[in-house]
Amino acid sequence: MSLKDEIFEQPAILERLRTAHWPHIQEVARAIRQHEIDAVFLAARGTSDHAGLYAKYLWGAYNRLPVGLATPSLFSIYERPPRLHRTLVVGISQSGQSPDIVSVIEEGRRQGAPTLAITNAPDSPLARASDWVINIDAGPERAVAATKTYTAQLMVIALLSVALAGDAERLDTLAHLPNLVAKTLEHAPTIAQAAERYRYMDQCVVLGRGYNYATAYEWALKLKELSYVVTAPYSSADFRHGPIAIVAHGFPVLAVTPSGAVFDDLLGLMQILKRDHQVELFVLSNEDNALMLADRAVPLPRDLPEWISPLVAIVPAQLFCYYLTRAKGFDTETPRGLSKVTKTQ
Amino acid sequence: MSLKDEIFEQPAILERLRTAHWPHIQEVARAIRQHEIDAVFLAARGTSDHAGLYAKYLWGAYNRLPVGLATPSLFSIYERPPRLHRTLVVGISQSGQSPDIVSVIEEGRRQGAPTLAITNAPDSPLARASDWVINIDAGPERAVAATKTYTAQLMVIALLSVALAGDAERLDTLAHLPNLVAKTLEHAPTIAQAAERYRYMDQCVVLGRGYNYATAYEWALKLKELSYVVTAPYSSADFRHGPIAIVAHGFPVLAVTPSGAVFDDLLGLMQILKRDHQVELFVLSNEDNALMLADRAVPLPRDLPEWISPLVAIVPAQLFCYYLTRAKGFDTETPRGLSKVTKTQ
Repeated sequence: MSLKDEIFEQPAILERLRTAHWPHIQEVARAIRQHEIDAVFLAARGTSDHAGLYAKYLWGAYNRLPVGLATPSLFSIYERPPRLHRTLVVGISQSGQSPDIVSVIEEGRRQGAPTLAITNAPDSPLARASDWVINIDAGPERAVAATKTYTAQLMVIALLSVALAGDAERLDTLAHLPNLVAKTLEHAPTIAQAAERYRYMDQCVVLGRGYNYATAYEWALKLKELSYVVTAPYSSADFRHGPIAIVAHGFPVLAVTPSGAVFDDLLGLMQILKRDHQVELFVLSNEDNALMLADRAVPLPRDLPEWISPLVAIVPAQLFCYYLTRAKGFDTETPRGLSKVTKTQ
Repeated sequence: MSLKDEIFEQPAILERLRTAHWPHIQEVARAIRQHEIDAVFLAARGTSDHAGLYAKYLWGAYNRLPVGLATPSLFSIYERPPRLHRTLVVGISQSGQSPDIVSVIEEGRRQGAPTLAITNAPDSPLARASDWVINIDAGPERAVAATKTYTAQLMVIALLSVALAGDAERLDTLAHLPNLVAKTLEHAPTIAQAAERYRYMDQCVVLGRGYNYATAYEWALKLKELSYVVTAPYSSADFRHGPIAIVAHGFPVLAVTPSGAVFDDLLGLMQILKRDHQVELFVLSNEDNALMLADRAVPLPRDLPEWISPLVAIVPAQLFCYYLTRAKGFDTETPRGLSKVTKTQ
């Protein structure tokens, strides 16, 4: 199994979660509903933290739960954890190994808060420390850069949102998701060709907002891990509040802008960046005016509800990073300086 | 008033907050304590958002309040705000003008949550929308890049933490703060000389953790706004989880590492970066083994309690950005593409 194989495995993994794992996710939702929960406190690192960002938007919008992202060092190093009252504590980790994430869950239990692990390793320390475990069941991930475990985490977050809300309509929407991801994978040859153009790109910014703020973060991390491109993700709002100063003629701006509530805001920013700053624009979108503005673009499926778009939009971003890494002649499987399991305090 | 003048105004502003504004901050704390509060929900953008990061650590550690950073678009664009039950809603903004931040406070009031504005504009829409207002009273900030309003926001956050906890010892510590900042400003000539070395730096990373995670974010933003350096801030833990792949021989790593609970973790990472990756290291610290490891360093005061170190450590970082911007021949007062008030939806 190579990184590319793992990227192409994603539709099957999403389908398996939606079918085989749905009864257990409903059970977990029922158990959570037995508790009076005002908020969610979520601990994660790296790619899993970006899944947490998706949860922050999705559970906020559809389950009306304010989601706070934990500062694990308050638990692990400072040993001054906040009080977690009427709060669901969630840990997300592929390996379930990182001591700082486990320490947040353990403190939650000590305080009597309900705890949930979302992990690819149901026997891991994280899983053992939690009241409930949802196995993302993505199979072994051999490539150091996470791809299929990220979309599997997003799928679990989406299914749990649907189960908590008892929302039959959104469950139907999720039935189409594996196929939408599969359709997006068909653009691989186009993406491979587009990546050639960026062979000598050594820095860029990645823009996204709302649900796809998570996609911008995850895309930027893959660019760093695999292609060694110096980059950072921004919401279109935060970008206007300062970082926009860095762009100049030809500066590469990568944007994830599917149709939805925040699309106009992103389009407006991209128009400014093109007209006033002459940036290079690479776009993932299903809106014609975004695709036409771009120097290079990958089309997303036309009928793509915004709330599930992060699961689809990250796929061409993963492929872009894969082909860019090959174009640059770097190792797609084991990037320099990284190993699969990172244990941080 | 130039950017440099505003940087040098900081000790006087901090002293004024500690003396003239302390009674009002105590009153606000008393009023907040009338409410049953389980958590804080905080909305801010840009520099003010980094002040929010400091609040997340300080109020978490000393007031045991979990602090969630708001996703303003859920309120302003999606119109799907989470429920804010038993939650203090805080908006931080220099100008108090940005509609998305105001919309979070307005929704808090609509739901009956207590609301607080921390702003330099006590007549602004943000202030008018809030139950309570704390004026950071930093005077007009003419330079587009925020400096004195940032440390003033941190000071208000620190004073409010002390007032909520009724902590006389920490109040005494804050009495020394203006002097510690003034002492740090004396290093300006050293910093000006050090900045010369980075005249052609066009990318870097900034490391910090715990309380100084905020400092890393704010330093990185100043580098982008003023010097157009492509950079991103990382906690030492997050950096190990992927972004470390970008560094190579001579890659510039800027680190803010005062003594404290997270120091050993940062020192360990810096040692790896020096030994295995031969990075260039620029360090702000009061620990000899960090200063000695660095290629260039600025010493921080010896007796600097970690919880107030972000108010001191950001000052040499501001000066570094100021002198680097001059060395590069850019405009320190009005960076390209930016204006002082940014109104985002």
